[in-house]
Amino acid sequence: MLSKNKIKFIQSLARKKNREAEKLFLVEGDKMVAEALESPLSVRLLCATDEFLADNPKLATKAAEVVEATDDEIRKASLLQSPQHALAVVAMPEVQFDPNTLNNQLSLALDFIQDPGNLGTIIRLADWFGIEQLLCSENTVDCFNPKVIQASMGAIFRVKVHYLNLPDSLQQAQKHKLPVYGAFLEGQNIYQHQLSETGILVMGNEGNGISPEVEQAVTEKIHIPSFASNETGSESLNVSMATGICLSEFRRRQI
Amino acid sequence: MLSKNKIKFIQSLARKKNREAEKLFLVEGDKMVAEALESPLSVRLLCATDEFLADNPKLATKAAEVVEATDDEIRKASLLQSPQHALAVVAMPEVQFDPNTLNNQLSLALDFIQDPGNLGTIIRLADWFGIEQLLCSENTVDCFNPKVIQASMGAIFRVKVHYLNLPDSLQQAQKHKLPVYGAFLEGQNIYQHQLSETGILVMGNEGNGISPEVEQAVTEKIHIPSFASNETGSESLNVSMATGICLSEFRRRQI
Repeated sequence: MLSKNKIKFIQSLARKKNREAEKLFLVEGDKMVAEALESPLSVRLLCATDEFLADNPKLATKAAEVVEATDDEIRKASLLQSPQHALAVVAMPEVQFDPNTLNNQLSLALDFIQDPGNLGTIIRLADWFGIEQLLCSENTVDCFNPKVIQASMGAIFRVKVHYLNLPDSLQQAQKHKLPVYGAFLEGQNIYQHQLSETGILVMGNEGNGISPEVEQAVTEKIHIPSFASNETGSESLNVSMATGICLSEFRRRQI
Repeated sequence: MLSKNKIKFIQSLARKKNREAEKLFLVEGDKMVAEALESPLSVRLLCATDEFLADNPKLATKAAEVVEATDDEIRKASLLQSPQHALAVVAMPEVQFDPNTLNNQLSLALDFIQDPGNLGTIIRLADWFGIEQLLCSENTVDCFNPKVIQASMGAIFRVKVHYLNLPDSLQQAQKHKLPVYGAFLEGQNIYQHQLSETGILVMGNEGNGISPEVEQAVTEKIHIPSFASNETGSESLNVSMATGICLSEFRRRQI
């Protein structure tokens, strides 16, 4: 049985302040919870129906505490509109940022991404395109926000997300001769631009793009051109879509 | 003033049955409404605040009927959680499907796309990548669904969307030697596959992919490979993201 106190505690993780105080976050949905249990992360609490527990006997043993709950109890604790049969409270991974690790790979940096759905989608993309590290400006939405977790489809368990002073970190990278690509409406045509296998790709805010402080650290401005035949077409692509198309373009050149 | 009857009528357009009976659809949000007024489509009714009307005096004359409304009245009529200052009732464009027009261009076909957000995003992508015609299976979500309209960001006013018997239409295209590309998990690596400038790209359902009937009309199976270093990565990309990456790959080869 899921106690009132536990329900209250689970729901408290909707707020960033509480997540940070506890260093815990909430994972919902059968598939996501199963992925959390399979991941190296520490699952502190698993609340699930008898059916879920019967279907996943081995996985359930990986949780520090297991509470069998009814669908109704899970619905009460859930932040989702359509709760499923399991939810888990997971310890935030400890990620140490080592700037030297950026030298041999392509990384992604986000400057003030506000929408949780966009951040979750971008984390999923990073996972797909083999991007191990995501550098986020401090004002980017929290990656442990429940909506980000849901949209990441489990990729949050694999991609390392760092929140840091983005202009400073990029200036450091620039000093080490690492190319810093930034997506700008007035950038060079990405399809014709030379792209390095290592470096950092920076994507900016949904409404305002890359901030002036971050722009100063960008060494190459790129842009996805429109192929619309007239000039009355769409003005821009959504930032997560633009990220996917840019990552695809970087990666395919390595084949 | 926006009468109770008009409010009821506007809200009735949330339902496909009513939209089809009236051949009308609803557009919300200041920017989208302005785009509708700028488009060749016929705006039958514009409901807007005095401020919106003062800011867009020329545009407002393009509507057959203009009703000045308060923010409160617009809120009552609106289907959005955060209504803005204008909404418009627009006549559905008459689109005639001529299979011969497919011969000289790249077109996009959707097999049972269910999510309105995905369809809207795909219409926006089609607009960006200069795809003039979108062929939808009859069970694909209605493109005049208010959520599709919002997600399309105005692209619905420019891209021609046809609902038709997709297996039949694709079989016809195949007979005319038009390549029919289909996105499959087990398809060829898109980055290494030869892609024609003309043809049809088919994307499948969110959960089940391309149906067996449509698969029979596909001449080339393609796939976006993952670049994740381990095998525990994400299983797939969202269909709208995959569509964006595929269209980018088709188009960049033409440069």
